[in-house]
Amino acid sequence: MDLTRELQPRVDVFNKALASFLAKGSPTALYDAARHLPMAGGKRLRPVMAMLSCEAVGGKSSQVLPFAIAIELIHNFTLVHDDIMDSSRLRRNIPTVHIKYGHPTAIIAGDLLFAKAFEAMHELSSHDAIFKKVEYGLTQVIREICEGQQLDMEFEQQPVVTVDAYMEMIRKKTAVLFRCASGGGARVGGGSSAIISALETYGEALGLAFQIQDDYLDMSSDVETLGKDIGNDIRNGKKTLIAVHSLTHATGREKKLLQSIFGNKQASDQDVQQVFHLFQDLHSIDYAQKTALHHNARAKEALERVDASKARDILTVLADYAIRREK
Amino acid sequence: MDLTRELQPRVDVFNKALASFLAKGSPTALYDAARHLPMAGGKRLRPVMAMLSCEAVGGKSSQVLPFAIAIELIHNFTLVHDDIMDSSRLRRNIPTVHIKYGHPTAIIAGDLLFAKAFEAMHELSSHDAIFKKVEYGLTQVIREICEGQQLDMEFEQQPVVTVDAYMEMIRKKTAVLFRCASGGGARVGGGSSAIISALETYGEALGLAFQIQDDYLDMSSDVETLGKDIGNDIRNGKKTLIAVHSLTHATGREKKLLQSIFGNKQASDQDVQQVFHLFQDLHSIDYAQKTALHHNARAKEALERVDASKARDILTVLADYAIRREK
Repeated sequence: MDLTRELQPRVDVFNKALASFLAKGSPTALYDAARHLPMAGGKRLRPVMAMLSCEAVGGKSSQVLPFAIAIELIHNFTLVHDDIMDSSRLRRNIPTVHIKYGHPTAIIAGDLLFAKAFEAMHELSSHDAIFKKVEYGLTQVIREICEGQQLDMEFEQQPVVTVDAYMEMIRKKTAVLFRCASGGGARVGGGSSAIISALETYGEALGLAFQIQDDYLDMSSDVETLGKDIGNDIRNGKKTLIAVHSLTHATGREKKLLQSIFGNKQASDQDVQQVFHLFQDLHSIDYAQKTALHHNARAKEALERVDASKARDILTVLADYAIRREK
Repeated sequence: MDLTRELQPRVDVFNKALASFLAKGSPTALYDAARHLPMAGGKRLRPVMAMLSCEAVGGKSSQVLPFAIAIELIHNFTLVHDDIMDSSRLRRNIPTVHIKYGHPTAIIAGDLLFAKAFEAMHELSSHDAIFKKVEYGLTQVIREICEGQQLDMEFEQQPVVTVDAYMEMIRKKTAVLFRCASGGGARVGGGSSAIISALETYGEALGLAFQIQDDYLDMSSDVETLGKDIGNDIRNGKKTLIAVHSLTHATGREKKLLQSIFGNKQASDQDVQQVFHLFQDLHSIDYAQKTALHHNARAKEALERVDASKARDILTVLADYAIRREK
């Protein structure tokens, strides 16, 4: 299956709906800042997953578009605020919102996207009871994302983080939004509780695999491929699964090396390379890859509980894409 | 009428409900940061207005508590983010959230309060259709607050701001949340469209009067009375109605004096006093007071469309309180 060929028509439909919903407004600077990131593209994985999950239970993807927009806007609002907290300068190969529009406007732009997400939900034609359940899900997802982001920051200050704690953090920070996208898509599409639950498991497992892979890519790729500051995570002492594994297993000279470079904002590109090689020597990258594969398998297993369909097939391939993508 | 005696029982009921809803959670630092401002008290004007509006249409104030919590949390979330943008160090006589917990956690704490506001709505026992209308109102209010906050910041950079532009800014930044509190309270209480509309007008007019008075108090009181950095607004060049009026009417020496001190972050306490006296000489303070009184009268006029009741009487006195309070 040519995944891009399957996804592109859905991405196009989604982008058109998003552009129409996220119209320019006044004050201009605020709306320009709010539109900056969501209109800069991105893979649209979450909205496409919502659309495919809706289709997989027999719904039409057009009916889930308002929910798909809400999910994507929530994703973008968290990125705008996260980039401020992480002092990131680049995202999707363009300057981050606070770099281009200043911190105050970036904070408000994030808040506006948050509000617009909940506004978008009101274009759903679903029954009120379904609206309410899905909308409640969004409130819980955002709460968990906030908790996850806080944990992520706290981990940077802690010398040791367990693998369990790390997994709980990325579940909240990343996986719950995927879970909500697929589960909500199935709910809007009229799926049964059992199928909604299966698609929730799919989304969450895919999200975990995706995040582990994302941290790996952030560490190994160059700035052209990913559009992020290379080595950012190593210099910030970001506790990725790879780092968590290495910090737990390093001893002697390696431990000292890690302690001196990891989390050192002044580390040189060569230092960053050295840490990367250490991650390889301690088999931390293998471990992360295996964990990503485990959750990828869980995602595909969950899909077996869903009736066969073209949409289900695409979701299966999407699970593999989440851990194989190079950008 | 002894307003405090009438309000206090409602404030107590509200505070109990809020404390129970906004429980401690994990990560501790995030929940402590989120609870910091809402649990520090405050006048609870907005939730009390929602409760009284609900009572004024024949509802019970207990039924509107989840909505009252939502309104108060939205108010607090905007304060947490505004304090970051304005670099304010004190609020309600205690350190602001970003001063106590740092900028990143303060940004997330604001986001969490935002999400919790929408979560609180799900404890309403109202019919789904009413839930949906009131919840949609919240999304629009937050959008307008974002727009108002952006305008407020942009005004600081503009040499001249018209009175009309100023009024539109405070309508969005402050008055719409009061409007939503009273209108939403009436809707949850089962009020007719006409009465909801009357109470919306009441809330918006009270909000405008309140904000004009608030800016005046900020400028004229000392730090013990208000718990804010004195002269903050003059040093930041904040375009209050008083400042807007003076900037439009000052000429010659007075204009030069204003231009040299207003918006000058290094201005001394004596400079601030000088500008304050200029505001008095140009009758800008009189003008602001008259405008506040005009909207106070509009608020009370709107109440005449509501059937007589104890709750309506309290709302009338509350409108006067909004422009007479000394802290």
